[in-house]
Amino acid sequence: MTRTGIVPKPQALLRPTQNGQRYELTSATALPKAAGFLWNQKMMIQITCRGYATSQYMQPEPAKYAYAPNLEAKTFMQPEQNYYAHHPGRFVYVKDEEADELFSAPYEPVRAPVDRFVFSVGKSDISWTVEHLDIRVEMSFCIPTHDVAELWTIKVTNLSNRNRKISVYPYFPIGYMSWMNQEAEYRSDLGGIVANSITPYQRAADYYKNKLLKDKTYFLCETPPVSWEAMQQAFEGEGGLHCPGAVMEETLGNSDARYETPTAAVQYRETLKPNEQREYRFLFGPALDDVEIRHMRSTYLSKEGFAKAAADYGAYMDKGQGSLQIETPDKDLDNFVNNWLPRQVYYHGDVNRLTTDPQTRNYMQDNMGMSYIKPEVTRKALLTALSQQEANGSMPDGILLTEGAELKYINQIPHTDHCVWLPVALEIYLAETGDYAILNEELISSNGDTFTVFERLSRAMDWLLGARDHRGLSFIAQGDWCDPMNMVGPKGVGVSGWLTVATGFACKLWADVCEQQGKTDIAARYRAGAKNANDCANKHFWDGDWFARGITDDGVTFGIKKDPEGRIWLNPQAWSILGGAANKEQIPKMLKSVDEHLTTPFGVAMFGPPYSKMREDVGRVTQKYPGQGENASVYNHAGIFYIHSLYSIGEKDRAYKLLRQMIPGPNAEDYIQRGQLPVYIPNYYRGAYREYPRTAGRSSQLFNTGTVSWAYRCFIEGLCGLKGDAEGLRVNPQLPSEWDGIKVTRLFRGATFEVDVKKGDVKDVKVKLDGKELGEPYVKNVKSGAVYKLEVLVPQ
Amino acid sequence: MTRTGIVPKPQALLRPTQNGQRYELTSATALPKAAGFLWNQKMMIQITCRGYATSQYMQPEPAKYAYAPNLEAKTFMQPEQNYYAHHPGRFVYVKDEEADELFSAPYEPVRAPVDRFVFSVGKSDISWTVEHLDIRVEMSFCIPTHDVAELWTIKVTNLSNRNRKISVYPYFPIGYMSWMNQEAEYRSDLGGIVANSITPYQRAADYYKNKLLKDKTYFLCETPPVSWEAMQQAFEGEGGLHCPGAVMEETLGNSDARYETPTAAVQYRETLKPNEQREYRFLFGPALDDVEIRHMRSTYLSKEGFAKAAADYGAYMDKGQGSLQIETPDKDLDNFVNNWLPRQVYYHGDVNRLTTDPQTRNYMQDNMGMSYIKPEVTRKALLTALSQQEANGSMPDGILLTEGAELKYINQIPHTDHCVWLPVALEIYLAETGDYAILNEELISSNGDTFTVFERLSRAMDWLLGARDHRGLSFIAQGDWCDPMNMVGPKGVGVSGWLTVATGFACKLWADVCEQQGKTDIAARYRAGAKNANDCANKHFWDGDWFARGITDDGVTFGIKKDPEGRIWLNPQAWSILGGAANKEQIPKMLKSVDEHLTTPFGVAMFGPPYSKMREDVGRVTQKYPGQGENASVYNHAGIFYIHSLYSIGEKDRAYKLLRQMIPGPNAEDYIQRGQLPVYIPNYYRGAYREYPRTAGRSSQLFNTGTVSWAYRCFIEGLCGLKGDAEGLRVNPQLPSEWDGIKVTRLFRGATFEVDVKKGDVKDVKVKLDGKELGEPYVKNVKSGAVYKLEVLVPQ
Repeated sequence: MTRTGIVPKPQALLRPTQNGQRYELTSATALPKAAGFLWNQKMMIQITCRGYATSQYMQPEPAKYAYAPNLEAKTFMQPEQNYYAHHPGRFVYVKDEEADELFSAPYEPVRAPVDRFVFSVGKSDISWTVEHLDIRVEMSFCIPTHDVAELWTIKVTNLSNRNRKISVYPYFPIGYMSWMNQEAEYRSDLGGIVANSITPYQRAADYYKNKLLKDKTYFLCETPPVSWEAMQQAFEGEGGLHCPGAVMEETLGNSDARYETPTAAVQYRETLKPNEQREYRFLFGPALDDVEIRHMRSTYLSKEGFAKAAADYGAYMDKGQGSLQIETPDKDLDNFVNNWLPRQVYYHGDVNRLTTDPQTRNYMQDNMGMSYIKPEVTRKALLTALSQQEANGSMPDGILLTEGAELKYINQIPHTDHCVWLPVALEIYLAETGDYAILNEELISSNGDTFTVFERLSRAMDWLLGARDHRGLSFIAQGDWCDPMNMVGPKGVGVSGWLTVATGFACKLWADVCEQQGKTDIAARYRAGAKNANDCANKHFWDGDWFARGITDDGVTFGIKKDPEGRIWLNPQAWSILGGAANKEQIPKMLKSVDEHLTTPFGVAMFGPPYSKMREDVGRVTQKYPGQGENASVYNHAGIFYIHSLYSIGEKDRAYKLLRQMIPGPNAEDYIQRGQLPVYIPNYYRGAYREYPRTAGRSSQLFNTGTVSWAYRCFIEGLCGLKGDAEGLRVNPQLPSEWDGIKVTRLFRGATFEVDVKKGDVKDVKVKLDGKELGEPYVKNVKSGAVYKLEVLVPQ
Repeated sequence: MTRTGIVPKPQALLRPTQNGQRYELTSATALPKAAGFLWNQKMMIQITCRGYATSQYMQPEPAKYAYAPNLEAKTFMQPEQNYYAHHPGRFVYVKDEEADELFSAPYEPVRAPVDRFVFSVGKSDISWTVEHLDIRVEMSFCIPTHDVAELWTIKVTNLSNRNRKISVYPYFPIGYMSWMNQEAEYRSDLGGIVANSITPYQRAADYYKNKLLKDKTYFLCETPPVSWEAMQQAFEGEGGLHCPGAVMEETLGNSDARYETPTAAVQYRETLKPNEQREYRFLFGPALDDVEIRHMRSTYLSKEGFAKAAADYGAYMDKGQGSLQIETPDKDLDNFVNNWLPRQVYYHGDVNRLTTDPQTRNYMQDNMGMSYIKPEVTRKALLTALSQQEANGSMPDGILLTEGAELKYINQIPHTDHCVWLPVALEIYLAETGDYAILNEELISSNGDTFTVFERLSRAMDWLLGARDHRGLSFIAQGDWCDPMNMVGPKGVGVSGWLTVATGFACKLWADVCEQQGKTDIAARYRAGAKNANDCANKHFWDGDWFARGITDDGVTFGIKKDPEGRIWLNPQAWSILGGAANKEQIPKMLKSVDEHLTTPFGVAMFGPPYSKMREDVGRVTQKYPGQGENASVYNHAGIFYIHSLYSIGEKDRAYKLLRQMIPGPNAEDYIQRGQLPVYIPNYYRGAYREYPRTAGRSSQLFNTGTVSWAYRCFIEGLCGLKGDAEGLRVNPQLPSEWDGIKVTRLFRGATFEVDVKKGDVKDVKVKLDGKELGEPYVKNVKSGAVYKLEVLVPQ
């Protein structure tokens, strides 16, 4: 093949290393899907090791400032993001003027086989080091804490011992902004390329809304370049992006774009002595007008501005450090749990997935995790959600977070499970904070009624208990949690096995709170409700070895032994354990069945076997690809509840095995096989392990998932066994059999617990506090600011 | 630059030739934007010389079977379509197995500098001949008349005098079909690659609608290949699409796609003797299910099937031949008018731009042109439109053509001009057919009322006359024709200068029909209406040298001398000439002003000077890029009315000059400068000639435009001067000064007129019919089937 000079290379092995905060990989040819992400409350950017980037910001709905080359659909965030040569990204071409050679950093678009490649994802910045032609390119960026912008530093160093003449071309394609108007030019008054567009609209009234949108994209240079290019077409010539006409010339074309796709590229021409280095700074982002662009420039675009922004952003990230540090025999696990898992929990609680109408169950769980990080956020979210409770006690499908927000996408489809998540989230908040005062907060809801939090929880439980049929089974309407099924109960008849046992669980949790509050009568009412739901579930859903998933409008029970597809579902089993529907005889049968039908090398599948075609009385689930998304995948959000249920019954080895499978693997093999991104838990790994082994276990690469709060909880309260209650901290570590001990630092209500857990020759957990054995494994009267040293012995 | 081996080449000159039906260009490196299009009533495909393709079909809303690599927005057809390396297309890689060399036909994705390149756009097929490495690749395709599919023939010939071992890889990327489900595999039972997807939906009810969508894309091979690839990722490796990993291997990977972007690629490995040729046939299109795929295969995928489809489709295209053949001193013009212009008129009348809710004014004009081709189509459209007339006599913004169709996009914004187009379209239909019987057709409208066509026209005129303010000026609401302005009259106060004179024109046309029908009283009523509208226009809009464009809600008159931007608008001038508002003193001033302010080398601009920023009392016009679309561009639809008005007052040289400028230039220079597509008139050429000379004159490359019916009419009735009326054909050719004569064949009411026009020493037009001079230039009692030979003398 002589056509291109580029020869496909075998995929290089990744060699990850860890330094506590960073995940590094070195390789000549980086793999396509390694990526990191940064966020603040206004923006999010995900960027791959190759330089492809996806960024969006809120104004107030998600918007972009760098676009695809065509008119993109606006949709919610998709799993398994697809990359292609013209995908938006951030690139730097480097041309050796004397040798007439070209490469690009970080890797795209030239794809030259570089000599050294380091991709380093930090908690608060992302950087690359790339070496080729005896030139080192270092790229790094961070984002501000309160503004929407990317702060890029690019350094170029001559590694050779001779003088070098090179040109450096940062190339930040802006893409297809708008069919109504798009243009770009170099603005010497602003010091960079400014693209302008008009968000398309038809109605005159929309003009007045749209005129406040940040329809400009700027790329500002601290150092004025020698040439520039604002018209993407200059990069679309015969050479392709890997060898574009624009950079083959002596200088860039200095062309504006007029109703042509804008780009931002500039040229620096340098003569570098041996070891000499140049450093450039750039600012990339959206703006309303020139005033804003000038303001952004003066605020950030300087060495001092960058340093201050990085320090501020680092401090902001530090607020998300979480309340657990572990030292186990598994260093990869430690790194993930100590550094990355709380960061992902923080992300969820901090930005609500950059939506204005989060699904109610997501909103509750995303904020629930903040109980371990910034509990005041959880508190506020509970009050916000409850203040949108419907007059009949039910919860809406989504919680509106901004003025003018609307329920979109799946939130327009009625789901019946949202009330379940109230006591679930509240339990964690109360356990972590002991803030029972929240129950007395009085809330005026958007429909005008006034109730306390306590009353609203009771009303929600009443609604759940009421939304059941004559058999005591919970209606499913067009869906419940894990929304894969939309045809079980659209006529208002079909019922959900999971929701019935989840109603039992929710009522039980709420009864516990009532009890604790001394409201024995009310507690008894919800205990009775829980028992009734559980009894009804047993009567109608128990299939001999597991609980069925539901009964359709037409009376067909499904998720049962005789179903060739969709035979067994994970959620009814996990939640019947948590809520008490499953008794001691049933549980071993269920665990065995899950092992047999749902376990894969990549975790436990949400159901199995996967549907191969539509089953019209079950619904949308079969429309998704078998093993993708909610459909028979290793759907981590379902899996983590099963793990939670396993810890609740002391199944520590089963639980740990599944929990460990969920953590993205830091080793090369895992990376290649599964496309995992080692800095977060994805919402799913592909399932259909038996049907489609090639793709099974592949990561969704989507970091939005309710899984993370629960995963963090499983580590804190399950594995480490350090769970709060009204009066203190209970201690019950559940180490896997193969471990001899762990060390844990746990922050709890302002106190620090330094815990040394060892396996010992004991029947029950024994705890010494500051050397003195406690009567029970329970530390009461925890004092804020105090340090508690615990020595814990657990049975073998 | 040693990175790629591909060196950007200077853009080669195009060398167009014409053979009556084909436009050919030969060049080593074809230009990016040369393209042809094919259509039937169910589908449309536009394909560039490089192989990039945009195709859509109706089910019933526009849908795709080959997609971009990302989630595309669904929108109406855009001008100046943007191409990039991963744009959907149809390609063939050819690998010389011995020399280890690669190229692709037609040009993308390899972009090898081929030895010979011919791109040939026919009326009923599109083909390429590409030679490189002593191998000739011929690609051609057509589409069926009544089905949605592409019928591809690919021939490969060994041009050398030695045996050759080559592999041939048709590569038809399918792209990102759906986030809900996408997959593809080779189906040996069906003989090709079949991709499957599910159109995303959320509501259960939508499933039942969507399940009938053609969510499968097939690529069927007549000859079984030796290997195949269904996963696009195989083409996304380090080599890029110009040197993909997949074809670098001995065979393709035979990989299915499972929730991965599908592609269709197959390999044929051949040993070819000198001059030996292989011929392959492929079928590419959408389908509901396997049954349909099998049916399509058995119907089409054979030598005989292809031949029959091509013959049928040729016959179908032949039905659009039009009613004019000219022989003038300008051969390029002849070719365009005789072959391509009627084809574009036919396209519009045949498929209504592949929408289900055409704008009422578009629908009337697109079908109006069919009066010259298939008048029964015009008749049906008139009846269809009128049967959707509102109870108050107004017309809706769009005409619904299918069950379940809805008004979309701009059709949701109230415009006040739709009634104008009824008598305009009717006039042409009556002039061409003499079918006055249509006036007595009784129509029950969708709102339940019953009126004849005659009554409905009167009611429409009454509505127009009524929808005026106390000064007799027509309300504009959120827009009128050329919809650029949405803020002139949203409060219901602002008025339109154009619509006021257009109301005059419409009433005048209708009065003429009434008169012809002997309804003198009614005629008088509408003549009085016309006069009143014209008088009011003169009183309030005449600005000294031209008519103003309107008066806003707040009483600001605009489109007047003192406006620094948007000072003069073309439409009020053209229509005041047509409708009689402009008198003999005013017209010369107006023509001079148009010459001075609006004339450019590329045609006459819609208004000038272009707005540089939003003027909030005028509206959306300034949101579009100055010189693009309706905004101060050479908007051909506006220009053609000006030309029409010029012919109506005998301004034959001014008219011809502008008409000729509108015809896409067949010469290389024009092509490169303006990106024109020589087989059709685009909806605009970029304006802002003074402000943005670099892009001025550039073609929109959008073939949907109401211009074409009028352009055809200007040739038939203006330039050739052969216009029908109730009793016969009037003869009044208006040759430009530089011509001595033309020959014309004109079909009219089943008769053939063979007309020889010469300049002569006459004061008025003199006509000899079969050698005998007629008393006036008027042939009455035209007999269907007869041939009339006319010798015409026109003044110098």
